Amino acid sequence: MQVYLDYGAGRPVDPRVLELVSRCHREVYGNPSSFHSKGFQALEVLGEARRRVAQLVGADEGEIVFTSGATESNNLALLGAAKRAKGRRKLVLSAVEHISVLNIGKALSREGFTVEHCPVDRLGVLDLGALEDLVDEETALVSVMAANGEIGTIEPIKEAAEIAHDAGALFHSDATAALGQIPLNVGELNVDLLTMSSNDIYGPRGVGALYIRKGVSVAPHMIGGGQERGLRSGTENIPGIAGMGLAAEIAGEELEAEAERLRGLRDALIQGILESIPESHLNGHPTLRLPGNANIRFSYIEGEALVMSLDAVGVQVSTGSACAAKTLEPSHTLLACGLKHEEAHGSLVFTLGKDNNLQQVEYVVEELPGIVARLRAMSPLTPEELRQDV
Amino acid sequence: MQVYLDYGAGRPVDPRVLELVSRCHREVYGNPSSFHSKGFQALEVLGEARRRVAQLVGADEGEIVFTSGATESNNLALLGAAKRAKGRRKLVLSAVEHISVLNIGKALSREGFTVEHCPVDRLGVLDLGALEDLVDEETALVSVMAANGEIGTIEPIKEAAEIAHDAGALFHSDATAALGQIPLNVGELNVDLLTMSSNDIYGPRGVGALYIRKGVSVAPHMIGGGQERGLRSGTENIPGIAGMGLAAEIAGEELEAEAERLRGLRDALIQGILESIPESHLNGHPTLRLPGNANIRFSYIEGEALVMSLDAVGVQVSTGSACAAKTLEPSHTLLACGLKHEEAHGSLVFTLGKDNNLQQVEYVVEELPGIVARLRAMSPLTPEELRQDV
Repeated sequence: MQVYLDYGAGRPVDPRVLELVSRCHREVYGNPSSFHSKGFQALEVLGEARRRVAQLVGADEGEIVFTSGATESNNLALLGAAKRAKGRRKLVLSAVEHISVLNIGKALSREGFTVEHCPVDRLGVLDLGALEDLVDEETALVSVMAANGEIGTIEPIKEAAEIAHDAGALFHSDATAALGQIPLNVGELNVDLLTMSSNDIYGPRGVGALYIRKGVSVAPHMIGGGQERGLRSGTENIPGIAGMGLAAEIAGEELEAEAERLRGLRDALIQGILESIPESHLNGHPTLRLPGNANIRFSYIEGEALVMSLDAVGVQVSTGSACAAKTLEPSHTLLACGLKHEEAHGSLVFTLGKDNNLQQVEYVVEELPGIVARLRAMSPLTPEELRQDV
Repeated sequence: MQVYLDYGAGRPVDPRVLELVSRCHREVYGNPSSFHSKGFQALEVLGEARRRVAQLVGADEGEIVFTSGATESNNLALLGAAKRAKGRRKLVLSAVEHISVLNIGKALSREGFTVEHCPVDRLGVLDLGALEDLVDEETALVSVMAANGEIGTIEPIKEAAEIAHDAGALFHSDATAALGQIPLNVGELNVDLLTMSSNDIYGPRGVGALYIRKGVSVAPHMIGGGQERGLRSGTENIPGIAGMGLAAEIAGEELEAEAERLRGLRDALIQGILESIPESHLNGHPTLRLPGNANIRFSYIEGEALVMSLDAVGVQVSTGSACAAKTLEPSHTLLACGLKHEEAHGSLVFTLGKDNNLQQVEYVVEELPGIVARLRAMSPLTPEELRQDV
């Protein structure tokens, strides 16, 4: 059986979206800056996509800037806000931000910014008291992700935004992992900048968007012909943008039912694993959790070995954020939750999506205990009582 | 009849490329950073695309970095080289560079760099003597496009690169308009950085590449997970990149025959227009010219009116670079060639491509004289002898 459980790392495009993307590639090849019918057609497709993305998060269409993906949106938000910060030289990032946000923080600290990391509790929830202590009138921007794609924990961004605003700072949220999984409304949450990724809502890759609240000033990251009201130059990727637009519309329509379905699968997976494998533990929050995310640690063994063994039986999972996979470092997210290095190393991330079903979950719950037992039998760290004949 | 002659602003994707892109969207949805079979599959597709793009310009695959398009490649090349310039604080750009290069120059001049613009002659050819005078041991980088997409003139970049290197400066060339139209070999031309666009070779939008000669150091523009050897973070747009790879392979195979065919169409178009319309003149070089480009100025009338009138009979053309269209400023390229404002305003850019044929060219040559005569009849600038009854 083939069971792809790494939706957090990459998603197949929704077939309805793919049809639109392909049609745009064939038919909408004009440049939206051109003064002729082919240009106007492209401009119309661009506007429609912008309305659709805006609607998903309750924004005005004039507040959406299309980018090449979540990483670029994060660059535009953080570098752009820092450049316009007028004397405020401090950034506060949650300790569990995606590596792109953390690395942008590092780059800004080399340019003289003070960058503070706000701790989280053992379940990955932002420590709002600590945030209050860290944010002051020197703070230009606070960045807290809407939910963590690795441990699944949903963050209290409305409360974090309030703390930022009370100090006169901007509030950015990376919604890459949360968008399409949980409802997000920029008005209710009171965020100033929101990072969105197309592929994470089953849209094409290479596209993203940044919500920029009206009146909030960020300097452009991509310099050029002045597209996207000067905020993001470069010829607009019309097929990709149209695809993200339709993906956003579908995400809005299907979110509730799909989240319900995924929560069922997720809970069956978590329960099945925790019940059948001794010394397995859930990472992240048990209930304030993305519908499609399960993150489980297995004592005494390495996540990489688990990933390879599962792949050999047709199951694709991850040990953490794919974007940080190459480093072989333990997950900074799990370390921030207070896990020890060896605990972080023995963790698996399951991210579920549209094509998963209960039969697949049952297959994983069937296969995993034997794999864990075999790897534990080979591990010098495994205590005698857990060694089984395999 | 529908006649699209604005290939410089946007191209339909080659059907063979579109098939691959769609297949990747459906099947290759793994993340190339993932340690499982779906990740390895994506990594393989990425490597194949990199080899194909490298081969088109005679580079090693390790010298190709994928980006979101030509604008980003220009940002990475110029901002990245400037950041690593070690004390050299001067840039020399040709006066006819694309607006993205010129605007990056403006941004760098605000950061304390001296930015000089090297003049061109009346045909748009770079003044190599002037370049020699401008480039000195303060110069970090020289940027000259391989060919100008607006006036079609092919630039002496091999000679310009030599001048840059003699002074110890890096040489960048924006090959957006030239790639796939004329042979380009980074070894023979001796460029250090080469900007490439996918859509301009009939690949998907939202993808580009930068050739970075081995040993040349540029700072990353997109900060994040460290993809593309740390030079371009962000999850790789596998379908788009695969599409650019195939487009590059096709461009290499078909370049010679297609260039020959386009030159025939282009010359028929130029000759047909110049012969049938009084006071029409070719802009740019008559022979050192992109196969698919014709740029013609018509005295006494406005290019925008011509664009709209042609669109009304099914013909899409441009007044200049689409990326600069929104400004309604006269083309900086034509002004750099020494044209007066009103001459620049009365110019039309025809960019031909794969779907064009002789019948279409004949249709334009038939329709255009009447349109020009009608617009001239309405223009207060038109001398009496050119006014025709229309």
